[in-house]
Amino acid sequence: MAGRKGKCWVVGVGPGDPELLTIKAARIIEQCPVVASPKSRQAKTVALDIARKAVDLSQKEIVLLRFPMTYSYEERETAHTAAADEVGKYLDDGLDVAMLTLGDPSIYTTASYVADLLTKLGYETEVVPGVPSFCASASAVQTILAQDEELLTIIPAAAGEEELNAALDCPGTKVIMKSGRKIPEVLELLRRRDLLGQTTFAENVGLPGEQTGPASDLEGRQPGYFTTLIVTDRE
Amino acid sequence: MAGRKGKCWVVGVGPGDPELLTIKAARIIEQCPVVASPKSRQAKTVALDIARKAVDLSQKEIVLLRFPMTYSYEERETAHTAAADEVGKYLDDGLDVAMLTLGDPSIYTTASYVADLLTKLGYETEVVPGVPSFCASASAVQTILAQDEELLTIIPAAAGEEELNAALDCPGTKVIMKSGRKIPEVLELLRRRDLLGQTTFAENVGLPGEQTGPASDLEGRQPGYFTTLIVTDRE
Repeated sequence: MAGRKGKCWVVGVGPGDPELLTIKAARIIEQCPVVASPKSRQAKTVALDIARKAVDLSQKEIVLLRFPMTYSYEERETAHTAAADEVGKYLDDGLDVAMLTLGDPSIYTTASYVADLLTKLGYETEVVPGVPSFCASASAVQTILAQDEELLTIIPAAAGEEELNAALDCPGTKVIMKSGRKIPEVLELLRRRDLLGQTTFAENVGLPGEQTGPASDLEGRQPGYFTTLIVTDRE
Repeated sequence: MAGRKGKCWVVGVGPGDPELLTIKAARIIEQCPVVASPKSRQAKTVALDIARKAVDLSQKEIVLLRFPMTYSYEERETAHTAAADEVGKYLDDGLDVAMLTLGDPSIYTTASYVADLLTKLGYETEVVPGVPSFCASASAVQTILAQDEELLTIIPAAAGEEELNAALDCPGTKVIMKSGRKIPEVLELLRRRDLLGQTTFAENVGLPGEQTGPASDLEGRQPGYFTTLIVTDRE
């Protein structure tokens, strides 16, 4: 008799502060015997480190999923497939897996690719939403992202200049996420477009080394990987 | 001697499921003697009802803040000022207030106006981020909002047609929020732009009457106030 297969929960652990896990995220992690978490050169095991401060993981099987930070589609696909295979082994053994991701799983996460592959392979998956980093950034810099009829556009810093310009053309607030290594180029673009004075930054919110301020403070230095820029068109 | 003034916490209670409160939101509500919550004709006291399922509010002073659903700037400003005055009375008495709001406080909330007024009046305020409704909607319809270099644009359904068109012109995913009464017009616009087939809806996610499906299923009926449309440009 084939046993019951495990379920893969894709759990957003929020932006950094362990208290910004949802009650559901904490409960699901607690009830899963296996916890899978991305490990990358730049983001290290941040999601796991956050979860560890909110939930006792000492009795869990910890699976580190290695994802290369690369623009090569093939390399990434290979890594996603390997991660899905690795998680799949535990699911085949009937074990539920909590696959952690920073922020919310539906917004710029590698876990969403892996979950997609697992779903296509016939495994049951479910997403537990989380607080996206830009909400914590807005709180940290004490700004409102959008009110009334304003638009809110979220742009990854890695987007091409054409997409960045299209987004910056939109009315309303623009959030430039995961800015880290592309900050100098993005700041240069904002300066050319005369938007630097309307831009604030939030770096490592809820993590060690949290900093906020006007984006001009970032000029001449390389900020951390977890840096968000908020461009407003309000006074 | 003037006593210590209370602090106003602006607490996002998330999209609907009481388990999607963050650990911090639950803790802050628990430690505040006063809980203020919006009450409107359309959204009723949804934020309060969600919090009540996560935290015991029986010993709290509950303050209902009445906000008219109106496009009149003056009427709204009057309501915001009245709400700030009401909350301010408790703060003057040295009592901390948890002012609740659906989703995340920085994204389309009336509470953000009230908090802004309180800050200008010299009171201490702090935002506790929450899970925005569109993250729960994405989870419910099992879609990914943005990956890699894709843009994500959030548009309130109440935006003018020019803004809606500007947003729909953007590459990437578009989320149309708080669509309720404007759904018929928005669906008509999506149909004219041949985008209806790429649009899914999520109604009352985590609340009674949750429904999801292709946006075309909404034609000919008036969906609930808490309806989100997700327009993708993926296959």
